[in-house]
Amino acid sequence: MGDTVKIALDAMGGDNAPHIVLAGANIARRRHPDARFLLVGDEAELKPGVARHRGLADFVEIRHAPGRVEDDAKPSQVVRSGRDTSMWQALEAVKDGDAAGVVSAGNTGALMAMAMLQLRRVPGLDRPAIGTFLPTLRGETVMLDLGANLACDARNLVEFAVMGTVFARTILGVPNPTVGLLNVGSEETKGNEALREAARILRETDMGGEFVGFVEGDDIPAGSVDVVVADGFAGNVALKTAEGTAKLLNAFIREAFRNSFMARIGYVFAKRSLDKLRARTDPRRYNGAMLLGLNGVCVKSHGGTDAIGFATAVGVAVDMVKRGGNRMIAEQIARISPAAGGTAQEAAS
Amino acid sequence: MGDTVKIALDAMGGDNAPHIVLAGANIARRRHPDARFLLVGDEAELKPGVARHRGLADFVEIRHAPGRVEDDAKPSQVVRSGRDTSMWQALEAVKDGDAAGVVSAGNTGALMAMAMLQLRRVPGLDRPAIGTFLPTLRGETVMLDLGANLACDARNLVEFAVMGTVFARTILGVPNPTVGLLNVGSEETKGNEALREAARILRETDMGGEFVGFVEGDDIPAGSVDVVVADGFAGNVALKTAEGTAKLLNAFIREAFRNSFMARIGYVFAKRSLDKLRARTDPRRYNGAMLLGLNGVCVKSHGGTDAIGFATAVGVAVDMVKRGGNRMIAEQIARISPAAGGTAQEAAS
Repeated sequence: MGDTVKIALDAMGGDNAPHIVLAGANIARRRHPDARFLLVGDEAELKPGVARHRGLADFVEIRHAPGRVEDDAKPSQVVRSGRDTSMWQALEAVKDGDAAGVVSAGNTGALMAMAMLQLRRVPGLDRPAIGTFLPTLRGETVMLDLGANLACDARNLVEFAVMGTVFARTILGVPNPTVGLLNVGSEETKGNEALREAARILRETDMGGEFVGFVEGDDIPAGSVDVVVADGFAGNVALKTAEGTAKLLNAFIREAFRNSFMARIGYVFAKRSLDKLRARTDPRRYNGAMLLGLNGVCVKSHGGTDAIGFATAVGVAVDMVKRGGNRMIAEQIARISPAAGGTAQEAAS
Repeated sequence: MGDTVKIALDAMGGDNAPHIVLAGANIARRRHPDARFLLVGDEAELKPGVARHRGLADFVEIRHAPGRVEDDAKPSQVVRSGRDTSMWQALEAVKDGDAAGVVSAGNTGALMAMAMLQLRRVPGLDRPAIGTFLPTLRGETVMLDLGANLACDARNLVEFAVMGTVFARTILGVPNPTVGLLNVGSEETKGNEALREAARILRETDMGGEFVGFVEGDDIPAGSVDVVVADGFAGNVALKTAEGTAKLLNAFIREAFRNSFMARIGYVFAKRSLDKLRARTDPRRYNGAMLLGLNGVCVKSHGGTDAIGFATAVGVAVDMVKRGGNRMIAEQIARISPAAGGTAQEAAS
């Protein structure tokens, strides 16, 4: 396949699979002409599906997998009994080298569990993390962890900082990302012991980015740093609160333009600008959470996204593969890992 | 003073003290004609200050306190050496029964520490908490803790649920508040042990509100429940992320209306509706965090607020005093406390 990048797609994952996966792939192959897709799922559904998307057939290959991971399936169960599923088979394709990365809009817990088993952690890493990027006042910011690890020690937070820095460099194209640890205040004495110890290590560690210290919740939308590092509980709460608040404000704006005749006229004039505003915070532009720290690119799409959103997630996988993000993460983790005598040793001891 | 409510005001606390305190008191006495204020601070500054606010003199009494808690003062230090400060003296007035509540826009950590020492916890309570209320899609929601306790066990979370329920009933006027525990998912298996144990207790406890289970970050702005209970770390991150995201969206909206001639025309037509929108999410309407669980009403105003915002915080104190919020909290805590054989026992053991 020459210089092409092959991404395995869990064709049966997500609310509207396989339709949005196929439509998303067809958008993604136009955005990334060197991308090729291994569609993993029910062949009987996928074959006619591909035919309905003009031009897609030249860019895809179908691999049959009869099973499907249900949305409410327990991760512990599907890792044992779900080996015939599209999710497992898509991950296996990455493990076997048949694809360079995988994208799934299916059950997050199952994807985490299966990916850990199949792709395994990069050497020296204690805990993988889920990272994503979101819109801010100054552009875009990477945040992790988003829920893979609810409680974290200092070593985990340092690892997240390293992985988040590579992710920001790879996906956002920031050459020297600034990194902040999410806390309840910016003073050195704030927070729990794990945060203070992680800050101490990060101040002394060359981890590829510029550690600026503690940041607070409002620093996330302000874009005060390029990478926000948090334990999975705080990161998850912050991301969902930000998403929910954006929805709230959008609802208030819609209502404001409806609640008088004058406002409706105003809307007609301002429509183009308001559409641009909506595009700027469109969740589909920020769809694609990456499981960082595994031997293979694995991207989780929102289950309820549409084809445009799914194509964004595919783009994250393509960029990570083409720019060697995972190789850089492995190198950086090896450098700081206890086995290498790196600084994470102190936190782990 | 008959049926009046006397509130002690830390006249020297906050970025623009005593000016905004005096101006705020003058707004508050119009909103709450039965309120009277004990202005605690530098008499030489306060006397001419009061005279400048027409009509205020009839509603205030000045108590001289020469000292002032600095913004960067360490709580542990000021509780020892700051007994001559306006903050300490204002709290002492509540302790001595000279005022029914106190409002301060000063140093949060110092206020917490001083209030704990002077007003003490209500009997049976393990940890006081900071609670506030914020705008949501369905009205307003109470959230606590906002940073008084970074790590919480099940008993603490149950106590917060009880206090938050009373706060919502008192401040928002919701007769039977719904209560949710902030988590990373709504399934019973989600979160850490403290959260799962607190949920188990709350399902079995008559704590005055209706416990609905776990909620997520986006449920806060959605207004899915009347009371969101979280440990101080998650609550602080969620509140600041919500505030920051609202600021981000407002900045985007301003930009949208500036970026074309048509949009500027649209703005002229829609201005009145947009002003209403702004008023709806005006942080000054949500100023006033309450230290819940003490023997006395103690409200913290944002340090950077203006007179209108300060008057809102005063209103929170007045409402809590008039509606007997603290008495209800003490009763409910006594009912569930271990000493009373209540359900919090299980969590504490």
